[in-house]
Amino acid sequence: MTLLAFLDFASVFVFALTGALVASRAQLDIVGFAFVACLTAVGGGTVRDLLLDRHPVFWVAEPSYILLATSAAALVFFTAHRVESRMSWVIWLDSFALAVAVPAGTGAALSLGQPAVIVVLMGMATGSLGGLMRDVVCNEVPLVLKQGELYITCAMAGAIAAVGLMQIGFPQQHALLACAAVCWALRAGSIAFGWHLPVYRSRPPRS
Amino acid sequence: MTLLAFLDFASVFVFALTGALVASRAQLDIVGFAFVACLTAVGGGTVRDLLLDRHPVFWVAEPSYILLATSAAALVFFTAHRVESRMSWVIWLDSFALAVAVPAGTGAALSLGQPAVIVVLMGMATGSLGGLMRDVVCNEVPLVLKQGELYITCAMAGAIAAVGLMQIGFPQQHALLACAAVCWALRAGSIAFGWHLPVYRSRPPRS
Amino acid sequence: MTLLAFLDFASVFVFALTGALVASRAQLDIVGFAFVACLTAVGGGTVRDLLLDRHPVFWVAEPSYILLATSAAALVFFTAHRVESRMSWVIWLDSFALAVAVPAGTGAALSLGQPAVIVVLMGMATGSLGGLMRDVVCNEVPLVLKQGELYITCAMAGAIAAVGLMQIGFPQQHALLACAAVCWALRAGSIAFGWHLPVYRSRPPRS
Repeated sequence: MTLLAFLDFASVFVFALTGALVASRAQLDIVGFAFVACLTAVGGGTVRDLLLDRHPVFWVAEPSYILLATSAAALVFFTAHRVESRMSWVIWLDSFALAVAVPAGTGAALSLGQPAVIVVLMGMATGSLGGLMRDVVCNEVPLVLKQGELYITCAMAGAIAAVGLMQIGFPQQHALLACAAVCWALRAGSIAFGWHLPVYRSRPPRS
Repeated sequence: MTLLAFLDFASVFVFALTGALVASRAQLDIVGFAFVACLTAVGGGTVRDLLLDRHPVFWVAEPSYILLATSAAALVFFTAHRVESRMSWVIWLDSFALAVAVPAGTGAALSLGQPAVIVVLMGMATGSLGGLMRDVVCNEVPLVLKQGELYITCAMAGAIAAVGLMQIGFPQQHALLACAAVCWALRAGSIAFGWHLPVYRSRPPRS
Repeated sequence: MTLLAFLDFASVFVFALTGALVASRAQLDIVGFAFVACLTAVGGGTVRDLLLDRHPVFWVAEPSYILLATSAAALVFFTAHRVESRMSWVIWLDSFALAVAVPAGTGAALSLGQPAVIVVLMGMATGSLGGLMRDVVCNEVPLVLKQGELYITCAMAGAIAAVGLMQIGFPQQHALLACAAVCWALRAGSIAFGWHLPVYRSRPPRS
C-alpha cells in the first residue's frame, strides 16, 4: 500500500470513529451511527475531489472506504458505553484524524500538479470539512471554529510545511510525514496546553 | 413517461410540499417558500449527480423540475392555513417523498452501471439529503437523525431490496416498485407504530 | 479587466468582509476569520461552478481570489474593534455583496449559453449560498431566510431584470449593471424602509 492510500484509509477510519461517538451523544441507532460516521469520514475528501474535478470520487472508485467507516461505526456502537468521557475521546481521535487527513488531501492535490496555494487549501479542506459537516448535522458547536483553540491553523501549518519541504527538495513521502507531525503537534498542544492565537476581542461590547 | 422520470417528478413535487410546509412554520414570504421548496426537492438528487459526475445535473437539463417545485410552494403558501397540524403533514408527506426518491436515486445509479454498494448509497443519499438540507437551513431537528425513528434505515432497506431483486433476475421496474414499497412500509410503521431499532444508550451518564 | 471579472472580485471582497465580521462576533482568531471569510466569499460561486460543470472552479483557476478574501479578513481582524454596531455593518455590506454577486453569477451562466431559467437560478445561487453557508456554520439566523425581509426576492428580481433586458436587445454589460441596481435597491429598501412581501401567517396557532 502506498503512503497516500494508507493516509486515506487511516483518516477515514479515525474520522468515522469520531462521527460515531458524536452519534452516540445523540443516541441514534446503528444505521444513524453509520450515516454520521460515513459523512464525517468521507465529507472532506469528497469536497476536495469535487472541487478538483477528480472523478470518480475516491469512495465511489473504492467502496471499501464506506465499509471501513461502517465497521468503525459498529465498533463504537457496541463498545462506547465502556468509555468514560466520550467528548474527550472525540477531541483526541479527531486530532489524529486531522493529522492524517491533511497530508492525504495535500498529497492528492500535489499528485494533480496543482499550484502551492491550492495544495494548501485542499489539505485544509480535506482535514476540516468532514468534521464540520458532522458537527453541523448533529448540532454540536463545530470543533473547527471553537473559540480559543488551534484547528484550521494546524491544518494550514501542516500543509504549508509539506509544500515548503518539497520546494527545498525533500521527497514527497517525507514532506507528508512532516505535515502530519506538524499538524498533530500543534493540535495536541492546543488541546493539552491551551496553545492558541490571540482571539479577536472587541473593545465596544459585542454588538 | 418512463418509471424513472415519473419517480423523479413525484419526489420533487412531494419534497417541495414538505419544504414549503417547513417554510410556513418559519413564516417566510412566497419567495422564501419557493427557495426552501426547491432546495428540499432537488438537494438529494443534485448531490447524487455531482458525486457520479452526471452532467448536466437533472434539473439543469430539465428546468421544469424547478417550475414544479415552485408550483408546490405556491400551492402550500395559499392553502396551508387550512391545515390543522402542519408538522404531521410534513412527516407523512416526507415519508411519501422518501419512498419515491430512494428508487429514483437507485435507478439513476443502476442506469450508470455502478456497483451494488454505490447504488445503495446513491439511493440513500437521494432520499435523505434534500430533507437534511431543509432541516439544517430552517433550523429544525433533522427528521433524518431523529432519535428512535427509522429513516435512513428505510432508505437502506429499500435500496438493498431493489439491488437484491435485480440480482435474482427481476426486471428493474419491479425492483424499483418493491424498493418504494419497502421504504414506505418501514417509514410508515415507524411513524404510526413506533417501529425502531435499538438506540444507543450509554451506561455512564451522557458525557 | 472585464466587467464580469470586476464583479467577481468585488463580490469576493465584500462577502469576505461580512464573513470576517461574523467571525468577529464569534471571537475567532485570525485563521478562523480567514476561514469564514473564504467560505462566504467563494461559497456561492463554487456551487454555481460545480452545478454547471465549469472546471476549474473559479478560485482554483485563479487563487488570487483566496488571497483577496484573506486580506479582507485581516483588515477586519485589525480594525473591527473601531466599528460601533457590527451587525448593521454585516447587513449593509452583505447588501452590496449580493448586488455584485447576483450579476456575476448571472453573467457566468449567460456566458455558458444556459437557458433563461437556469441563468436566473445561478444568479440567485451565487448571490445567496455564500451568505447562507456563513450563517449556518457560525450558527447565526440566516439573513437569506430572515422573516419579513426581502433577500432571495432581490436576487431573483435582479437576475430576471438582466435576462429580460438582454432579450429585448440590451447589451450584456448594461443588463448586468441594471441587475446590480435592481438587486441593491430592493435590498436596501427592505433594510431601510422595511419593504417586504406578505409573509405567511397561519390562522390556526403555529403547529
